[in-house]
Amino acid sequence: MTMSIRIEKSGALKPKPDEDKLGFGSYFTDHMFLMNYDTDKGWHDARIVPYAPLQFDPAAMVFHYGQAIFEGLKAFRTNDGRILLFRPDKNAQRFNRSCERLCMPEIDEETFVEAIRAIVRVEADWVPAKAGASLYIRPFIIATEPALGVRPSKSYLFAVILSPVGNYYGEGLKPVNIRVESDFVRAVRGGIGNAKTAANYVGGLKAQEIAAADNCAQVLWLDGVERKYIEEVGSMNVFFKINGKVITPALNGSILDGVTRQSVIRLLEEWGIPVVEAKIAIDDVLAAVKDGTLEEAFGTGTAAVISAVGGLHANGSMHVINRGEIGELTSRLYDAITGIQAGKLEDSLGWTVDCG
Amino acid sequence: MTMSIRIEKSGALKPKPDEDKLGFGSYFTDHMFLMNYDTDKGWHDARIVPYAPLQFDPAAMVFHYGQAIFEGLKAFRTNDGRILLFRPDKNAQRFNRSCERLCMPEIDEETFVEAIRAIVRVEADWVPAKAGASLYIRPFIIATEPALGVRPSKSYLFAVILSPVGNYYGEGLKPVNIRVESDFVRAVRGGIGNAKTAANYVGGLKAQEIAAADNCAQVLWLDGVERKYIEEVGSMNVFFKINGKVITPALNGSILDGVTRQSVIRLLEEWGIPVVEAKIAIDDVLAAVKDGTLEEAFGTGTAAVISAVGGLHANGSMHVINRGEIGELTSRLYDAITGIQAGKLEDSLGWTVDCG
Repeated sequence: MTMSIRIEKSGALKPKPDEDKLGFGSYFTDHMFLMNYDTDKGWHDARIVPYAPLQFDPAAMVFHYGQAIFEGLKAFRTNDGRILLFRPDKNAQRFNRSCERLCMPEIDEETFVEAIRAIVRVEADWVPAKAGASLYIRPFIIATEPALGVRPSKSYLFAVILSPVGNYYGEGLKPVNIRVESDFVRAVRGGIGNAKTAANYVGGLKAQEIAAADNCAQVLWLDGVERKYIEEVGSMNVFFKINGKVITPALNGSILDGVTRQSVIRLLEEWGIPVVEAKIAIDDVLAAVKDGTLEEAFGTGTAAVISAVGGLHANGSMHVINRGEIGELTSRLYDAITGIQAGKLEDSLGWTVDCG
Repeated sequence: MTMSIRIEKSGALKPKPDEDKLGFGSYFTDHMFLMNYDTDKGWHDARIVPYAPLQFDPAAMVFHYGQAIFEGLKAFRTNDGRILLFRPDKNAQRFNRSCERLCMPEIDEETFVEAIRAIVRVEADWVPAKAGASLYIRPFIIATEPALGVRPSKSYLFAVILSPVGNYYGEGLKPVNIRVESDFVRAVRGGIGNAKTAANYVGGLKAQEIAAADNCAQVLWLDGVERKYIEEVGSMNVFFKINGKVITPALNGSILDGVTRQSVIRLLEEWGIPVVEAKIAIDDVLAAVKDGTLEEAFGTGTAAVISAVGGLHANGSMHVINRGEIGELTSRLYDAITGIQAGKLEDSLGWTVDCG
């Protein structure tokens, strides 16, 4: 790795928050990684500087035309004091796929991972020791050129900020309810649903408010064409265990290719549990709840890891899954992934990367 | 109007750009209007201050989850030295519809218009005198709360920035070619296609690059479900004159409700020219080009006003419209709207608002 990173340390470090009360995405560490892009110089001026507000021209294109992509991954503290990243290469690859879709400049995989390792090393004291807690890592690129007119920006900022986090849901590990959304649509084939961009989240806020009013933590999105097939949950991919087999929506261009999703599929294969990626009609899932063949449902995502789904709210009523309890396979997957992430279980698949 | 606006004048005014070389959205004036929102105080601290970079926390939610809406309108200098806005109430109303869809706080119509009048009055010297040039006005709201986690922000910034502009297209008033996009999709029913948000533009950049390679200035979007019906052009609504009748896609929830579109429909009604809003299949339009019944096509939008479409690129070839020339009705509409906007024609419909 040849990237040279200038490091400017903060003179006044913040007090660390109570690890029992981290919540999600509320605290930020003392430093951040920054790097600029312009068409003449490419990516340049890699630096780690004190976390502080950034200056942007009010005409910066990110505010007007939405060129903004991000990733989310986590750093974990092991019992023997090492700090591990979980599959950062997968985030790097998806980051670049998002860049390509949104006409933004890519960052080579090695540079992306090295930037993250470097900032996490500087902020090592911020990686929580508490089980279930971690340091959430948010790399993002935004368009900075000050110009109005719809076209790709000529300048960008790449930043990596860090936030010590606990559970994503207030419910902790308790199963969450999910509301099947039949009016609003998240994404459609030919759109940008498989890019990790700010633009994919804003449209879902209204559906999320409606879901909350129905006692649901998240929205289950259906496809935009037929409004019949399951796509994903607000911030997770989704899996169902029906009659001993696990099924998850196939990647169709409008679904996010989740790193935890990939990891779950791989683990199930390792364990010899049947798993398929396919088109899944919501009606078939609801029928399986009714006839008792739907054994478990869970969401997967970096923020929530593995989250049991306790109920599907559809057609005005709640369809309870597995008596609203965490299923056996859901638990096993949660334990396996968090165990590998925290270095408690053997990482036979080579998923973790040491930050040291 | 009871809003009190604090005004801080810039000590160093910029030189004004050459009115013959304005382009679009490249120059910004000396001041901007700002106002903040938080859940406790609502909208507060209305102020006009020197145009300058703004500070944002790197975790500001606009960068991550896309809460960003905007409007575009113009101020025109009349021959007798007055400054006119064109239907700012329509922009205010659409601004609030966008806010509602994206779970952002609305700004009452009167405040919105008064903010614009106030900043334009301060920047009166920046309103170009040259025919066809104007002062483009960009009001926008962005989410500023520093937090990760998908939910509406608790704080926002409303800003109005100003840019003296010439023609939107490099081509000037010359007809532009439009490429019919059959792979990528802009928006779908149930999505956010009818909100004026940054999120609706970023997905189109790739299609726009492909269009440019086919010698087209813009993309013609088809519906996301059947990919058969015309929706809109990249930054314009679109009209066709077929057999003496004018037709434009009906507002279906995924199309932007353009102010120029509304104005064109109203003018055509005034003039006794048949105009309908309907579902329009691209195949029917291409057939009308072929059999010679398609007389004219034009796009409408604040930036481009009325822009003749000289050719539709579809299925690998260019279908030339009206021999690639500006049609009679297109010209008449352009003259009428720009005439009313600049105070050269009588404003019998009460569309202009004096900034004085």
